[in-house]
Amino acid sequence: MQLSQRAVNMQASPIRKLMPFANKTKNEGVKVYHLNIGQPDIETPKQMLDVYHNFNEKVLAYGPSQGLEVYRQNLVRYYKKNDISITVDDIIVTTAGSEAIILTMLAIGNHGDEVIVPEPFYTNYNGFATMSGLKLVPLTTYVEDGFALPSTEKITSLITPKTCAIMLCNPGNPTGAVYSKSEIQRIAEVARRHNLYVVSDEVYREFIYDGGTHTSILDIADFSDNAIMVDSVSKRYSACGARIGCIVSRNAAVMTAILKFAQARLCPPTIDQLAASACVDLEPEYFANILAEYDKRRTLVFDELQKIDGVVCLKPKGAFYIIAKLPVEDAEDFAIWMLTQYRENDETVMFAPAQGFYATPGLGRNEVRIAYILKEEDLKKAMILFRNGLAKYKETH
Amino acid sequence: MQLSQRAVNMQASPIRKLMPFANKTKNEGVKVYHLNIGQPDIETPKQMLDVYHNFNEKVLAYGPSQGLEVYRQNLVRYYKKNDISITVDDIIVTTAGSEAIILTMLAIGNHGDEVIVPEPFYTNYNGFATMSGLKLVPLTTYVEDGFALPSTEKITSLITPKTCAIMLCNPGNPTGAVYSKSEIQRIAEVARRHNLYVVSDEVYREFIYDGGTHTSILDIADFSDNAIMVDSVSKRYSACGARIGCIVSRNAAVMTAILKFAQARLCPPTIDQLAASACVDLEPEYFANILAEYDKRRTLVFDELQKIDGVVCLKPKGAFYIIAKLPVEDAEDFAIWMLTQYRENDETVMFAPAQGFYATPGLGRNEVRIAYILKEEDLKKAMILFRNGLAKYKETH
Repeated sequence: MQLSQRAVNMQASPIRKLMPFANKTKNEGVKVYHLNIGQPDIETPKQMLDVYHNFNEKVLAYGPSQGLEVYRQNLVRYYKKNDISITVDDIIVTTAGSEAIILTMLAIGNHGDEVIVPEPFYTNYNGFATMSGLKLVPLTTYVEDGFALPSTEKITSLITPKTCAIMLCNPGNPTGAVYSKSEIQRIAEVARRHNLYVVSDEVYREFIYDGGTHTSILDIADFSDNAIMVDSVSKRYSACGARIGCIVSRNAAVMTAILKFAQARLCPPTIDQLAASACVDLEPEYFANILAEYDKRRTLVFDELQKIDGVVCLKPKGAFYIIAKLPVEDAEDFAIWMLTQYRENDETVMFAPAQGFYATPGLGRNEVRIAYILKEEDLKKAMILFRNGLAKYKETH
Repeated sequence: MQLSQRAVNMQASPIRKLMPFANKTKNEGVKVYHLNIGQPDIETPKQMLDVYHNFNEKVLAYGPSQGLEVYRQNLVRYYKKNDISITVDDIIVTTAGSEAIILTMLAIGNHGDEVIVPEPFYTNYNGFATMSGLKLVPLTTYVEDGFALPSTEKITSLITPKTCAIMLCNPGNPTGAVYSKSEIQRIAEVARRHNLYVVSDEVYREFIYDGGTHTSILDIADFSDNAIMVDSVSKRYSACGARIGCIVSRNAAVMTAILKFAQARLCPPTIDQLAASACVDLEPEYFANILAEYDKRRTLVFDELQKIDGVVCLKPKGAFYIIAKLPVEDAEDFAIWMLTQYRENDETVMFAPAQGFYATPGLGRNEVRIAYILKEEDLKKAMILFRNGLAKYKETH
């Protein structure tokens, strides 16, 4: 027997691939600060956890393939609060944002079709594309200008007869970039002219700093047939383990097609949907407090990075990641060295080499992604470890 | 924009496609007995529900992509009790059996490769094959001999250079067939000779009647590299809404490949895994009682079907489905007629036309699948409705 070509081609997760080094280090009794993965330490809302505590059905039964009606009704209300006007029929609940993207890709592209995506991008987009037989075509953006969207000409130059969609992550993981309404409109204009879908990953909607606002792809006028939004409660409610996301589109043909795929896998988890549903009416203060907390962390990490000679980064506008260019040749080698060689008081720090977030060979080799998801005290220690470690590494490399 | 060809080709669920008729009927105040879907009415074990009630982490966090270590350890114990000897590294926990099959197909076959599967088969295999670009090649089995496996010559005649696997469901949904050890060995021999994987769906392991025993594909000697088992807790613990399954194989290359796909979607639901984990030490009486209950239902349904002139079926040996050939031309037409036209005291019954379980065009048109998942009293009423409705239908068709 053989493995499939896609299994051979499939990239191992660059976020998770250094875990064996981290585990070995931990087994030696060394504490590792994890800045490599977007697992927030914010408490999951009590309203959500109470749903698990109070579940009182006798049978944990299948739900509808489209998602529980009560949850979809609540989602309509949630989106309305965010100035997105949709109906329950425009929503399919999924097993996290991951499944939302896979099912969308299966519905909109044939084997070998292309999706244009600004790079660096959430590395698992690559995996989802491999799984669905699509090809990601990178639209390179740069740390020096905060990963701003390139010119319309540049974007247009990547379009071929095989292009089926442009995919965005807004706010951006791993970049922290937030696209303005005029930028989203510009993308929509390109998509409209070339008859493309725009798939917009908006899971960090609430994480925008400095009073900025979010523009959903569903906010764009006369764009209903092109616009597909994917979403997740993982970051919003610090509920990564619930695995609840959704696909939202007003394009009925697309939703009918996706529902056929969704029916094959029967339904997303039942209690987890009910738990997510209970969060819809969280007070605005809930997000305000969380945002204030992340904002402190963002400033701390950014200020610490500014202290290091040769580091290039702008202050991110959204999400909870920052990409920094380092004065090293190979950031993965540095990351492994930190895990295996560098200790201060039996502590070290882990972060994600950024090369895996690029599709263009060679790009990002000297960049890292830092997730600022630890409380300030730990984050401070982690960043000092990072700075001292980098200085030491440079002495010997 | 267009839909993908696979979205156009994707079969709508034949189990769920009649739901609009059922919903309309219910809205008219008519009670519908559901024999169309495998949603057990058995209570979910208290041990399992208590995990939700007692979850006391503050953050509902990601788990490992391979599944929680504690759950995989418990699964090793569960399988050991079932005479299947494996290690934690041989297991990847999935979001239900559905994801287990999709990830397996992605890893073992290239676009256009073929999987031989006895028909009638669980209809969503078709959907998973469409999603992963594989082609199911049906190996027809027949109601008249209880859906016994065809001869080795017949099986071998379907093998082409594109064949990558033989897929089994044992005990069988929708057939109720249970394959003996010698039959599984015969399949393994064919697979070994032609260098094929055998993917064995064993989610109904516990549901075998008349003192029969189960043979796992993992029980076959010298077959470790070929054997991939998929499993789920949905039926076992009446926990369809938990969406927890797994892939088990001793083929390390296959498991490494599948893990790369699993990493892309991050992890299965966290609390649901813990809930499933709590069921591992259920007493044997738990299954004995459930089996006794299903056995009564099986006998009731079979006996009622025997009373109807022109119905052909054998008593199923496992799972909780029976396929019956009816004296009608088009069983789907009959099923819709029952939902839309036939009532007794404002009640009617819903079942699944079997044509959707066949890949060979035209087969199964006069067959239905009945899931015997209601308590005896309701099942009795449902079967009387079925018999009377069929008599009435035949008068006019």
